[in-house]
Amino acid sequence: MTYAVSRAERPALRAGVLHGELVVDIEQALAAHGRALVADDPSDLLQVIAGGHPAIEEVRAAVDAVARAGETGRPGAERLHELGSVPLVAPLPRPNSLRDYLVIEEHMRGVVAAGVIKEVPEEWFSVPAHYKGNVDEIYGPEDTVPWPAYTDKLDYELEICAVIGAPGRRIRAADAGRHIVGYTLYNDWSARDIQAREMSIGNGPGVSKDFASSIGPCIATPDEFDPATAHLQARIDGEVWSAGTIGTMQFSFPELVEWTSQEQTLRPGDLLGSGTIGKGCGVEIDRWLTQGCVVELEAEGIGVLRNRVGHKGQGPARAVALPER
Amino acid sequence: MTYAVSRAERPALRAGVLHGELVVDIEQALAAHGRALVADDPSDLLQVIAGGHPAIEEVRAAVDAVARAGETGRPGAERLHELGSVPLVAPLPRPNSLRDYLVIEEHMRGVVAAGVIKEVPEEWFSVPAHYKGNVDEIYGPEDTVPWPAYTDKLDYELEICAVIGAPGRRIRAADAGRHIVGYTLYNDWSARDIQAREMSIGNGPGVSKDFASSIGPCIATPDEFDPATAHLQARIDGEVWSAGTIGTMQFSFPELVEWTSQEQTLRPGDLLGSGTIGKGCGVEIDRWLTQGCVVELEAEGIGVLRNRVGHKGQGPARAVALPER
Repeated sequence: MTYAVSRAERPALRAGVLHGELVVDIEQALAAHGRALVADDPSDLLQVIAGGHPAIEEVRAAVDAVARAGETGRPGAERLHELGSVPLVAPLPRPNSLRDYLVIEEHMRGVVAAGVIKEVPEEWFSVPAHYKGNVDEIYGPEDTVPWPAYTDKLDYELEICAVIGAPGRRIRAADAGRHIVGYTLYNDWSARDIQAREMSIGNGPGVSKDFASSIGPCIATPDEFDPATAHLQARIDGEVWSAGTIGTMQFSFPELVEWTSQEQTLRPGDLLGSGTIGKGCGVEIDRWLTQGCVVELEAEGIGVLRNRVGHKGQGPARAVALPER
Repeated sequence: MTYAVSRAERPALRAGVLHGELVVDIEQALAAHGRALVADDPSDLLQVIAGGHPAIEEVRAAVDAVARAGETGRPGAERLHELGSVPLVAPLPRPNSLRDYLVIEEHMRGVVAAGVIKEVPEEWFSVPAHYKGNVDEIYGPEDTVPWPAYTDKLDYELEICAVIGAPGRRIRAADAGRHIVGYTLYNDWSARDIQAREMSIGNGPGVSKDFASSIGPCIATPDEFDPATAHLQARIDGEVWSAGTIGTMQFSFPELVEWTSQEQTLRPGDLLGSGTIGKGCGVEIDRWLTQGCVVELEAEGIGVLRNRVGHKGQGPARAVALPER
């Protein structure tokens, strides 16, 4: 996870690991327990995951040692915090990229049933098409996301995304596990009215998605999270609107990695979204968000990603002011 | 422009300005002529343009002074080079983002005439839809771009893109000139067979575009390049296949800036592509690239962006080995 601490009155972001009810600081854990340095800057989660699973194992050993010893560390160099005492932000505040596929069968049947499209396109069965999201408008836990002035039909989408750690090109599906460092929740916020207009032109969605994507609260490693079986839920103002598992994926995450990396390099911090799960958005069930509502996505093993939706045209409000880039 | 020098046997990238037949190094020019520092690292063009037009003016004054004095500088800290003595790479080897719109009327009429689509979609007249390209597979002058194993129909696209310098949100078209730092050529390489299959699913193009985008050879500032009137050309193995001007844009670059920044921040190094100019690609004129051919895009005031196309499945070959990221 990525969490925030105050340093000289400005928030600083730190990479951490959840260990029971403790958040253990990765850089301080490595410093305290003499492990090989896993990254130039181990306070940056993107750099940590770039080392792939070997780096994760180094971190795991150091974190376990700190948690066992219960060593808090000195002020300004804390090794651990109580969960809840430090705010979490998006685990990757700026992912390297964000691709969103559309490969969950029940969702495709749902949008046909809802009359959004007439039938599942023939090519959907053989080509895992994606669009790219906007990595410059990523929101994390507790942030208020904007309700754009240009939409009357704001929607959520309950998704899981795979997170690339070690880079690779021409990766076979059988080897994709070396590159997928974990999974996180992904709310692919969508302005449905403008989305329909944009997509009729053929380029895919643009400003109908680009105003906000939420990810978090943490990245779960594959030993703790199985995307095939995990229970997922979306709640709006506390009421369950969507619930289920990913179900049948026309292409699995390893197959998406193989397809995508054929003629391009996948890099640390690339996110590959599943597309919406069946009945995992409002348009499928004809229920609509209202200004000021609270949307919670939950996944067993990942946690709860909670966002309030702002009022139309008022812009976002972040729970933690992010450092300037 | 961005150019490469050898430093301790490894190539290093440097930001430069073309002054007549000289390439003047920005960092060294600023160091020699006592101008205010325009960026933390003025050897990185992305950081230089982040300062917008005021930074460009600082650089211009220092560069003019160096060129007037004809001061070469000491070895290892050269202030200027003869054009042609140092290789150019993509002006932004990794742009912050790459959006490609589709707003040139003659191209839309061309793809209808070619039978690619039946008619211009109704929404095209009111919504400037875009897709996002892949900033991790950017090629520059003289690079050999890959011919993906998954296509038999590789195509070029002759485009201009606007380059964002100073960041902004909710920018009005009338103020967009403060944020557009210049323009460059953009070859939006396209695998037409897989593109048609991907686009039938609705998400827009994916791997049909993501294997390569070429930009360069330099970014021309608005006082030296007017996208409305500049003559553009595409030559394949020396033969002119496409020639003309951008012609009527359904939305101008300033209007694209206004539309896009409504609910998201535009940042330094964001590229906004025009879409193909009329008859600016092979599919419109039913002519097709062959493996090993040379594609040159030329724009008055920007220069020539020359790339060879590789042989199917053999991958790319860069003219300059880029530093590891």
